[in-house]
Amino acid sequence: MATSQKRLTIDTINPRVREAEYAVRGELAVLSEEFRARLASNDSSLPFDQVISANIGNPQQLGQKPITFFRQVLSLLQYPALLENEEILLNNLGYKPDVLERARFLLKAVGSVGAYTASNGIPEVRQSIARFLERRDGHPADPKDIYLSSGASSAVNNLLNIICNGPTSGVLVPIPQYPLYTATLSLLGGKLVPYYLDESRGWGTDLEAIKGAYKAATENGTEVRAIVIINPGNPTGASLSAEDIEAVIDFAAKKKLVVMADEVYQTNIFKGKFYSFKRILRDLQKSHPGTYDNVELVSMHSISKGMVGECGQRGGYFELVGFDPVVQQQVYKLVSITLCPPATAQCLVEMMVNPPQKGSPSYELYEKEFDDIFNGLKQKAYALYEAFKQMEGVECDEPQGSMYLFPTINLPTKAIQAAKKQGRTPDEFYAVRLLEATGICVVPGSGFGQKEGTLHFRTTFLAPGTGWIDRMQKFHKEFMDEFH
Amino acid sequence: MATSQKRLTIDTINPRVREAEYAVRGELAVLSEEFRARLASNDSSLPFDQVISANIGNPQQLGQKPITFFRQVLSLLQYPALLENEEILLNNLGYKPDVLERARFLLKAVGSVGAYTASNGIPEVRQSIARFLERRDGHPADPKDIYLSSGASSAVNNLLNIICNGPTSGVLVPIPQYPLYTATLSLLGGKLVPYYLDESRGWGTDLEAIKGAYKAATENGTEVRAIVIINPGNPTGASLSAEDIEAVIDFAAKKKLVVMADEVYQTNIFKGKFYSFKRILRDLQKSHPGTYDNVELVSMHSISKGMVGECGQRGGYFELVGFDPVVQQQVYKLVSITLCPPATAQCLVEMMVNPPQKGSPSYELYEKEFDDIFNGLKQKAYALYEAFKQMEGVECDEPQGSMYLFPTINLPTKAIQAAKKQGRTPDEFYAVRLLEATGICVVPGSGFGQKEGTLHFRTTFLAPGTGWIDRMQKFHKEFMDEFH
Repeated sequence: MATSQKRLTIDTINPRVREAEYAVRGELAVLSEEFRARLASNDSSLPFDQVISANIGNPQQLGQKPITFFRQVLSLLQYPALLENEEILLNNLGYKPDVLERARFLLKAVGSVGAYTASNGIPEVRQSIARFLERRDGHPADPKDIYLSSGASSAVNNLLNIICNGPTSGVLVPIPQYPLYTATLSLLGGKLVPYYLDESRGWGTDLEAIKGAYKAATENGTEVRAIVIINPGNPTGASLSAEDIEAVIDFAAKKKLVVMADEVYQTNIFKGKFYSFKRILRDLQKSHPGTYDNVELVSMHSISKGMVGECGQRGGYFELVGFDPVVQQQVYKLVSITLCPPATAQCLVEMMVNPPQKGSPSYELYEKEFDDIFNGLKQKAYALYEAFKQMEGVECDEPQGSMYLFPTINLPTKAIQAAKKQGRTPDEFYAVRLLEATGICVVPGSGFGQKEGTLHFRTTFLAPGTGWIDRMQKFHKEFMDEFH
Repeated sequence: MATSQKRLTIDTINPRVREAEYAVRGELAVLSEEFRARLASNDSSLPFDQVISANIGNPQQLGQKPITFFRQVLSLLQYPALLENEEILLNNLGYKPDVLERARFLLKAVGSVGAYTASNGIPEVRQSIARFLERRDGHPADPKDIYLSSGASSAVNNLLNIICNGPTSGVLVPIPQYPLYTATLSLLGGKLVPYYLDESRGWGTDLEAIKGAYKAATENGTEVRAIVIINPGNPTGASLSAEDIEAVIDFAAKKKLVVMADEVYQTNIFKGKFYSFKRILRDLQKSHPGTYDNVELVSMHSISKGMVGECGQRGGYFELVGFDPVVQQQVYKLVSITLCPPATAQCLVEMMVNPPQKGSPSYELYEKEFDDIFNGLKQKAYALYEAFKQMEGVECDEPQGSMYLFPTINLPTKAIQAAKKQGRTPDEFYAVRLLEATGICVVPGSGFGQKEGTLHFRTTFLAPGTGWIDRMQKFHKEFMDEFH
């Protein structure tokens, strides 16, 4: 092989980057964008006329309308001169007085949304988040423990960066999982310690599985330092019971594990109830004085999901509970290197945690929009679920939460052989065929991890209408017929 | 020492985080925010009534007005329903037809600014950037080589992450430098290979210094993989001549070094002319066929600086030139893990590179605002420069570009001794005293690196008025009197 004249080749770049895997935006996503571009240029050779990106939780790309109150305030933050035309705003443009009031409050706090903010976020925004957490959990929250972030992704990156101390540092990550965790661990050179979720119990956490994974890793010389929980689950949608959370916290306390609670889907709950890790931890600390004082918890939230769905604005926050103040200074330093999250996104976080209240002028519309989105998501989730029940070889839990369904698929042996021939996993083979036949892009289960011998795929239920579900059903029947 | 009950202590966290240094938002910045909070709560015990954050290039925090065209478009992107009231916008709110047109164009491209975009950025925005680069450089540019970013910081992080392959990977970084580079190298475990800029030649690059640093590093077993150039300089303000750039490219070609050109201050030029690395590289490739084909260049730009000054919006882009397409796929994968830069910031990048043109309705105001900001910065730079010339022991180059002056300070021996007593470097001691006496926050030269035995500080010249300059002069005189 000739030596490349380039410094950077696939063989010489950082191997941690090379080895990182991130299927949500991988080969299938790229192929789906190619199809979209071909359709846009009036290529009529494809057997479909629309690409459905069910591979990523991107609500507004699939037609979810933003909440009016949020966007009206943001328009004023971007162009504050509008506030000089109060009467026009109120009488002609449908802005309500509380929109103007909120914009003035946020502008006072931020100065200009074009200015860098404090690296941990605008103080008034952290204040609002603390009050929200107190209402939600019934326990105190301190703005100094809250850090604004550019979505949950950058929060995860920063926290794992603090936690990972060389190649023997291990992090317990649920399988299946949102691949941000494995990708970030790969980039940081930390060790993935996978623990399997219990599909037979609606993808709940299984303490025995966690203990087993911990034990095996420890015996292999890994210092397990943290445990990741995604609740409600991604890709599974499962929402954890208070008992499951207690069990995780108890284990974390005994083994000195930092608990990373990814709670970005906390308002996407169709069944059961959301319990925050912070609340359960504080409850345990009250009921068992002294026993849980050492627990270090980071909980994350985001404006990308829920009924907000503003992923393109890139906002979120994390709260540190029980962290050493000296370590918190290091967290501050780390986040300061990238200066600050977008100021407008921070303002959106403030509005998410402090929306219009009953009696305020914008409340009625806000409530209606919120409920319509919620009910629409639930309806679409159930429509898809009902379709899966009809499909041969497909098994799916009743929708619980988040934005995804994660059905099991049992494929005929011939299909598995055909996949092997192409050098693909069977679920990947199925997903590629689905995309090529229907324009529907899902993510194969192998992108999230799944038990050996099982096959799944993750699909969002965000796309409007039921036409795409019909197309999926039709494809499935033909696929099964072909390989029987 | 008792074993901590916490998993994370200063001794157990990732040592790369612990060792990273980022003075721009370090101890002095934190102290200045404390002072600001005390003033806000009517604490009258401080000897000043205003904090001047001259430590960070944050124009809008210091009163720079955003460009009207940009913000009007952004208000429409955030709340597109306004576009249904075209007559009110045009007749009552001062929006011009080209504002509406641009908003419609960008909305068509992005769908909703609340949706994730492609991870490398909105295709239409990359198209606009390519056209801008072609106009600027007189050479072709391809949208597929352009990647939107969240400001230049995330671009630097992603690129160094690709480049650094273990602890022997070295990167040539100018000293003094914006500490993002050293901090990021520290986080990635790469090796800093410092090369000194030539203060006697207005902080130009000194090829002999680069060669010397390369040679010493190589002899010590470091594989030098890249060279960073900040042009115009930060903290120095220097803008490089075409010859200096040619020399760097020539050296990079010979040694197979990736060239990282940080060009975020390309419109902040008061003296001389901006030459882009891309242009000089393409010129060289034309005039010396074959000789420079192997050069890998990444050039970065941002909406945070220049007359745009929208740092809080977090936008920027980088262009890859001469990169292996397979490596570019890895870059794409890496940026996709954090999903995408803020959609609104991407739209701002589009407007920065494609502002209103002569003859369009918004042009006149745009041009006036742009020129006023430029002239204001230049005036303020010279006012500060004149003041420095008056100050005993202070030497400063004539302002050239960027947003900073970086004067040398010659401090009396007694001051150096007093600093030592406090465990501080002399420049840090001086900066702390300045902040405590005047509320003016600057960054000591040691935060950027400086030649042994020399002392400097970096100050922006963004603050309005000259009152703060007078306060700085008065402080300096008293400081010098005290320690003579």
